[in-house]
Amino acid sequence: MDMTIEATAQAVMERCDILGGYSEEPARLTRRYGTPAMRQVNERVAVWMHDAGMTVRQDNAGNLVGRYEASSLGARTLMLGSHLDTVRDAGKYDGPLGVLTALACVQRLHDRQQRLPFAIELFAFADEEGLRFHSSYLGSKVVAGTFDPATLRLADTEGVTLAEAMRAFGGNPDVLQASKRDDSDLLGYCEVHIEQGPVLESLNLPVGVVSSIAGQSRIAVNFTGVAGHAGTVPMSLRHDALCAAAEFVLAVEELGQGLPGLVATVGQMNVQPGASNVIPGLVTLSLDVRHQDDAVREQACRQLQERANKIGASRRVSANWQPLQPHRTVPCSPRLTQLLAQAIEAAQHPVYPLPSGAGHDAVALSDLTEIAMLFVRCKGGISHHPAESVTQADVAAAIEVLEQFLVLLAK
Amino acid sequence: MDMTIEATAQAVMERCDILGGYSEEPARLTRRYGTPAMRQVNERVAVWMHDAGMTVRQDNAGNLVGRYEASSLGARTLMLGSHLDTVRDAGKYDGPLGVLTALACVQRLHDRQQRLPFAIELFAFADEEGLRFHSSYLGSKVVAGTFDPATLRLADTEGVTLAEAMRAFGGNPDVLQASKRDDSDLLGYCEVHIEQGPVLESLNLPVGVVSSIAGQSRIAVNFTGVAGHAGTVPMSLRHDALCAAAEFVLAVEELGQGLPGLVATVGQMNVQPGASNVIPGLVTLSLDVRHQDDAVREQACRQLQERANKIGASRRVSANWQPLQPHRTVPCSPRLTQLLAQAIEAAQHPVYPLPSGAGHDAVALSDLTEIAMLFVRCKGGISHHPAESVTQADVAAAIEVLEQFLVLLAK
Repeated sequence: MDMTIEATAQAVMERCDILGGYSEEPARLTRRYGTPAMRQVNERVAVWMHDAGMTVRQDNAGNLVGRYEASSLGARTLMLGSHLDTVRDAGKYDGPLGVLTALACVQRLHDRQQRLPFAIELFAFADEEGLRFHSSYLGSKVVAGTFDPATLRLADTEGVTLAEAMRAFGGNPDVLQASKRDDSDLLGYCEVHIEQGPVLESLNLPVGVVSSIAGQSRIAVNFTGVAGHAGTVPMSLRHDALCAAAEFVLAVEELGQGLPGLVATVGQMNVQPGASNVIPGLVTLSLDVRHQDDAVREQACRQLQERANKIGASRRVSANWQPLQPHRTVPCSPRLTQLLAQAIEAAQHPVYPLPSGAGHDAVALSDLTEIAMLFVRCKGGISHHPAESVTQADVAAAIEVLEQFLVLLAK
Repeated sequence: MDMTIEATAQAVMERCDILGGYSEEPARLTRRYGTPAMRQVNERVAVWMHDAGMTVRQDNAGNLVGRYEASSLGARTLMLGSHLDTVRDAGKYDGPLGVLTALACVQRLHDRQQRLPFAIELFAFADEEGLRFHSSYLGSKVVAGTFDPATLRLADTEGVTLAEAMRAFGGNPDVLQASKRDDSDLLGYCEVHIEQGPVLESLNLPVGVVSSIAGQSRIAVNFTGVAGHAGTVPMSLRHDALCAAAEFVLAVEELGQGLPGLVATVGQMNVQPGASNVIPGLVTLSLDVRHQDDAVREQACRQLQERANKIGASRRVSANWQPLQPHRTVPCSPRLTQLLAQAIEAAQHPVYPLPSGAGHDAVALSDLTEIAMLFVRCKGGISHHPAESVTQADVAAAIEVLEQFLVLLAK
């Protein structure tokens, strides 16, 4: 007997609550790679996968993989998924919602005893956030075959290496290449995820289709001036590093506001020596610049570097610019994204394509296969926080859209 | 036999070096109240005072006091002095230079077997910086009779109270009021100190006469916006606390540059949550505003508060303004300052009156008697730092000026 979409959504919400109860810490949700809390959610989700008619395995990295067979042998495979690890003091939806929405769609197929002309493989990745080992996309990189074995030597704060944690988690760091997914039968990868931003909410839309995952530049910027006594150095003789940094922060904001689609953020700032009666001599700050067009992002960074130098020169404060490894923009598959858009229309919602400013497992999987992503509205755009919130109605919309997507792909 | 002024200055420089060797820490100069290093410098300076013909005592707070008698009984008394404690990782001149310059002048009188028509009391204060107990002007407040006994209960980082430290230092916290200097015979107090700023250097002057010690407002300012994901929240939907703070920092600088004599500084800034990929939700900062005219300072603070509120309102970021106890401007004595100016002229140097932006023992003593201060040029305006530096020639100028001051006062 078929459950209604609403009842399915309610079940997904309940399961998000259940997984939210598995934490390393008593009063808040923190689930790092390889911890007992991660083992417990893997065990729990494995049961749910099995109940949905899937065969279940855990790969060498600790990713949980459920497979729902196609209507015929030799059919191709669609990958669905997201991650089950969290940041520290996390919300309940970033990651698990994508796994459980996809799982719900498979459950509905199984309830109807329906097989599609393609198999579904549901990946519940064991580490996307990289909280414990600074190993972002660990799970999806292993599946994509792009995992760097040097990462295995990284140690957590207790000195446990990733290789040791992986082994303790039931994985096998020596044969990770065996867990790379063969791509010859793949139709692509589709991930459902909370938006983590306020755009859908501001447009009053339950879901949105992701056009691309924006590229990102990260730059460490320093301004070095001259420290001095706040009471005795006249304004005209100062070389205040914080005033230079303040001018730069506003230049970053101005550029971001002037270039559609660009987001530019100074998130960290350290002021030295940092006493109320001492003129700042050194300010170090972080700059984060993202845009779905790599050329626009790179041009913006060049402009900001020029601006930092000009600000420094005019104040006789030296500006130092140290770019960290940038991430290129990952485009979503036009074909799959078009199908997702049609599915949204079929579910009677307006289609709104938006870039993802945050990274997702889909970034890593884009090296393996075509990717598509569906965003679900989240309250206030808040994520990585216990206040992370989605409505059951929006989850119902996501389930309906994903179900329609499967129908359209099956045609 | 008279030493030349140059030889006296050389001796003062050597004694600054000697006192700079007494520290609590092996590799840097730190001399807090009541420490063995302070006991050693008191013992050393006591010997020098004695050699200069003074009677020497240590008062109940641990201040070292040398008295050089007048030519006749019943004469009045001029107070000279500065402090012997230091900040952490200090220079050699902030404090000791004033004590040793005054001591050198007394030594020269003694060498000539000359008595003045007034006695000289040289105070080497035991705690001006307040590093150990946050008890600024401790020594001079006891002498002025304005010391708050509640301060005695303050504890240092090891849990030792000020009362205990005072007793261990040979003082007596129970009878501090007995160490208040009777003011009936006082002519005033004159202090020599390094400028701690770059004004004299920029004007190529060895010394300057202090017009007043500037009043100071300290305000804790917070901007509370909304934290969010740096990749997903569009610029137009942000309430970035750091952008608001940056605008405020530049407003502070602009106001300071526009009002002659005003110095306004943001020296501390803390950005929360402080991750490179998170929009700042909270910024706390310190504001320090000083001017020799209290009305100008108070008006400047009102303007800045208004500015903070406007910046907040325009960004939908809330601005919070918490003033700490302000210090009023302390004017220097017109009579003594006029004599100091004449002494500078007599020593063949241009007279340049300047306000002191930093506080000094003279602030506390202004509650007891008239005050005057002579500033000595310091290299690069640097103080509270091992790079603190004065030249022997400038010290010679200061000795000559102070000596001329005594001559003029004697007339």
